[in-house]
Amino acid sequence: MKKIFIKLVFFFMVTGCTQGGGDGRGSLADPLPSWADGPTKQAIVAFVKQVTDSGGAGFIPVAERIATFDNDGTLWAEKPLVQELFAIYRVKKMVARDPGLAKVQPYKAIVENDKDYFVKGGEKALVQLVAATHTGMTEDEFEKSVADFFSQAIVNGRPVRQTVYQPQLELLDYLRTNGFNIYICTGGTVDVVRGISLPLYGIPKERVIGTNFKYQFSDSTGQLMRMPELDHFNDKSGKPAAIQLHIGRRPVFACGNEGGEGDIEMLQFSQGSSYPSFQLLINHDDSAREFYYQEKGNESLHAALEGHWHVVSMRNDWKTVYPEK
Amino acid sequence: MKKIFIKLVFFFMVTGCTQGGGDGRGSLADPLPSWADGPTKQAIVAFVKQVTDSGGAGFIPVAERIATFDNDGTLWAEKPLVQELFAIYRVKKMVARDPGLAKVQPYKAIVENDKDYFVKGGEKALVQLVAATHTGMTEDEFEKSVADFFSQAIVNGRPVRQTVYQPQLELLDYLRTNGFNIYICTGGTVDVVRGISLPLYGIPKERVIGTNFKYQFSDSTGQLMRMPELDHFNDKSGKPAAIQLHIGRRPVFACGNEGGEGDIEMLQFSQGSSYPSFQLLINHDDSAREFYYQEKGNESLHAALEGHWHVVSMRNDWKTVYPEK
Repeated sequence: MKKIFIKLVFFFMVTGCTQGGGDGRGSLADPLPSWADGPTKQAIVAFVKQVTDSGGAGFIPVAERIATFDNDGTLWAEKPLVQELFAIYRVKKMVARDPGLAKVQPYKAIVENDKDYFVKGGEKALVQLVAATHTGMTEDEFEKSVADFFSQAIVNGRPVRQTVYQPQLELLDYLRTNGFNIYICTGGTVDVVRGISLPLYGIPKERVIGTNFKYQFSDSTGQLMRMPELDHFNDKSGKPAAIQLHIGRRPVFACGNEGGEGDIEMLQFSQGSSYPSFQLLINHDDSAREFYYQEKGNESLHAALEGHWHVVSMRNDWKTVYPEK
Repeated sequence: MKKIFIKLVFFFMVTGCTQGGGDGRGSLADPLPSWADGPTKQAIVAFVKQVTDSGGAGFIPVAERIATFDNDGTLWAEKPLVQELFAIYRVKKMVARDPGLAKVQPYKAIVENDKDYFVKGGEKALVQLVAATHTGMTEDEFEKSVADFFSQAIVNGRPVRQTVYQPQLELLDYLRTNGFNIYICTGGTVDVVRGISLPLYGIPKERVIGTNFKYQFSDSTGQLMRMPELDHFNDKSGKPAAIQLHIGRRPVFACGNEGGEGDIEMLQFSQGSSYPSFQLLINHDDSAREFYYQEKGNESLHAALEGHWHVVSMRNDWKTVYPEK
């Protein structure tokens, strides 16, 4: 009886199967089952093996195994931007409380579904919208509003949890299991992404770096007010600066996506590490299962070519895109 | 024989003694041996017991056990400021390389030991000195310079390691052992304090929050340049703002010192936590073993009285101040 039991335990260890069927991710099973076998997956696994081999020349101590991931288009879909949905949600709440706002920009453009206002206004109009909807209240009030939004948010007909990329969840788990300290480095505002980072990605609030507005502390109330002044825009060259400020060193693993040229500098910064390092760029080339979009001059893909970064073809490298319901 | 061995093991467990004599800090021994028995020590121990009691009403989950400590005057002595010694060290290095600088302010004032320049210039002159000596180079070069300085720095005739407060090292250990996540929140520049946070306090770089200058990323070199523009001055109301930005929540344990009114807001912010919280203020009242200095209007001590914070009398609450050599 005892022998049979040991054999069974051994069988489950080797196959990674659990009693309930499981997801096939046991300690000896494939840690990246949603990744197609191919050069990208092989390179990831080879890098992790290299830097965790304590006897090898490429070993990186656990404290220095810093990984940074962009969020929009890298960990979850960015069409539409969840941050924009949140801003719209906020506008509706604000207008319901103060109907006069419906005649004032940028609220007016949202109420009237005037997309031209934002197309013409570009980044400036977007920052105006975010400032109008994300500031002018205490931090505690804002966090409650974020929680309310996420509790009911639907993106492309799915709950938010279904818009994350299953292969990336596996990659986060794989890196975590191998001692990596994982940060999100997002162009989104930090307090919005902190509202979902732990339940969606297992990443705690203090490991989220993002765009932020100025805070002003009130001695009389002991509260932080969110001020309508942009403090840091965490995109492009803002990313290495914020990573240095928060973490105090270069990431050895950095992952971003093409589409908005936002992650080139983060990956370049990572490549300057004195340790072996790994740069991963998601290419949105899957119009059937996700989206197909490219930058006008393919800047990110050119940078990847020049820097010998690893490029994920969503179409070819990912066997599945979204988690099962 | 076996019984004797067990008895010996039990004896060592209870007394906390180890074979080599040890420091008396075993698991059952007094975790704060340099703290005099009295209300302050008792309050610290009672708080830690309360928030770690998983069955109690005051329990705080490990992830939320955030502690923030000021550095100058709280973890080590602030007379003189180590940051100023570093600036002087930098001036000497810079003037040796470019002697013409000796005729230009603020270098001139340092070379000529013109203390009046800084007394008259106040905070503005100090920021000017820090900008002149801490920027205009890459981050990598600066970190090398910090390491060089600390490898030979002498403060009040002692190596830097001897200027830290022994009771605070014990407090850090005690909190860490009880699952607290400890951050430094310093008025000093972040990259200087990161140069010693791990070896001196066991606090890694990513857990240091401080004053910082702007970084500018260069695409061509992949390097961050340190720019002479102050980005954030981490003192007074700057502390709650930076804590929110970095950690995303209030600390439940906050410790600062009177002397420069720099920590009042951090302690107020902590007190707004929805969890039980603890505020600790060091009073520099020990002219014999350290220094005696008070604010003009005793602002910090008044805030402590009003907020029912715990005040450490260095003279009465600390049996020893500095570590043994």
